[in-house]
Amino acid sequence: MLRNICIHLSYKGSQYHGFQMQPNKQTIQSLLQAAIMQVTGESVKVIGSGRTDAGVHARAQVANFLIHSNLPTGKCCKALNHHLPSDIVVWDAQEVSRTFDARKSAKRKTYRYTINTNRYPDPLRQHMELHHPAPLDVTAMSEALPYFLGEHDFTSFSSTRNPKENKVRTIYDATLEQIRPGVIQFTISGNGFLYQMVRIIVGTLLVIGQGKRLPQEIEDILLAKDRKQAGPTVKPHGLILWEVNYDGI
Amino acid sequence: MLRNICIHLSYKGSQYHGFQMQPNKQTIQSLLQAAIMQVTGESVKVIGSGRTDAGVHARAQVANFLIHSNLPTGKCCKALNHHLPSDIVVWDAQEVSRTFDARKSAKRKTYRYTINTNRYPDPLRQHMELHHPAPLDVTAMSEALPYFLGEHDFTSFSSTRNPKENKVRTIYDATLEQIRPGVIQFTISGNGFLYQMVRIIVGTLLVIGQGKRLPQEIEDILLAKDRKQAGPTVKPHGLILWEVNYDGI
Repeated sequence: MLRNICIHLSYKGSQYHGFQMQPNKQTIQSLLQAAIMQVTGESVKVIGSGRTDAGVHARAQVANFLIHSNLPTGKCCKALNHHLPSDIVVWDAQEVSRTFDARKSAKRKTYRYTINTNRYPDPLRQHMELHHPAPLDVTAMSEALPYFLGEHDFTSFSSTRNPKENKVRTIYDATLEQIRPGVIQFTISGNGFLYQMVRIIVGTLLVIGQGKRLPQEIEDILLAKDRKQAGPTVKPHGLILWEVNYDGI
Repeated sequence: MLRNICIHLSYKGSQYHGFQMQPNKQTIQSLLQAAIMQVTGESVKVIGSGRTDAGVHARAQVANFLIHSNLPTGKCCKALNHHLPSDIVVWDAQEVSRTFDARKSAKRKTYRYTINTNRYPDPLRQHMELHHPAPLDVTAMSEALPYFLGEHDFTSFSSTRNPKENKVRTIYDATLEQIRPGVIQFTISGNGFLYQMVRIIVGTLLVIGQGKRLPQEIEDILLAKDRKQAGPTVKPHGLILWEVNYDGI
């Protein structure tokens, strides 16, 4: 009988070409599929809650796959981890209903982005935070955040790669916190995110933090539906997929 | 005129054979000396506040060296970092009195050791915390900490490598804190630490946390002055040199 297995995993993205399979490249999806093949002998397609780009990390990525094997879910994490590199760790596995789809069933996703504004980078966190050694106007950046809340067309805040995609998304929460001296962290939750959307939002907030644009300009940038109106795409290594929420799981 | 330069630096110890010079091995001291040679053309001896072992990290190591160069201290960090790998970062440099010695002048040192007791390791912190996937009795470990406070002969808590050394040290503070679910952190301050002393103290606390020994046995272990009475030396990668304090610097 075909079983639907849902897994939770963490990974450090530095060494990988993102989540999604690509020919001849090490990706999280390809390594998960290879590990499942090793454990069960079955060739499956792993569905992630969403793609993460090369260099982006995950604290709690969610994925699912259909399998015939009767491997108990209690043994699944240990068995998969045995065949995965140490920077990818599966920490939960459960059997879910056949209708569950890690991508389509996701109700809410949360990302975090960390920026170190100190003069010198922190070698203990060099792959985990963007080093931006210049003062940022935290008040202005905080004032810009509410403009993102609610349902908007995020065309201006997405890569131009998929022009025909529906670009309407809802942002539930967007906060900015100082977590250590000189180190700030954005946390953004929504019903879904377009390709590079969080990195373009953070890039635009950085421009506001530098005093080059005003917080209220976010409104105009959203209405323009034009990628060129927003700020640059910040580097991936400061980004972490923090949490994905579902109904009843 | 010979100038005495004091630097503060952070490093991730994973890739290095500790602080101290060793023939044909990459150490923090050898890389600092090579960087100083590149910047000034001078061959100097860098004195660290203390050695850190292979794999041990530093948030705020302090070191000094005597130099003829008139390189302004304001340019020193950037110039040295340019010649250092990215996991070693010098973030402060100042000229100090000729009598200052980073090792002998140190008044207080603080180390932290982090243990992840969750079932699976955290790939985002794999080189920064010991993975010990079993419950620990935090209350018992906390009860053991006060026994270390004050002046004691720490022979039982040091490597047998230097038998003739004076093993009396004073511990000022020792605390245990849960910093995330399932993750605990010891912070220990003292006037100085013997070789592997923090790692043997933590190893002994782990034995107490496992219920194999009682908190009050620390008193007997100290009095025994016998390395065999204490617990094992825990792995280096959970240890970080947190802070070194001096008078007037």
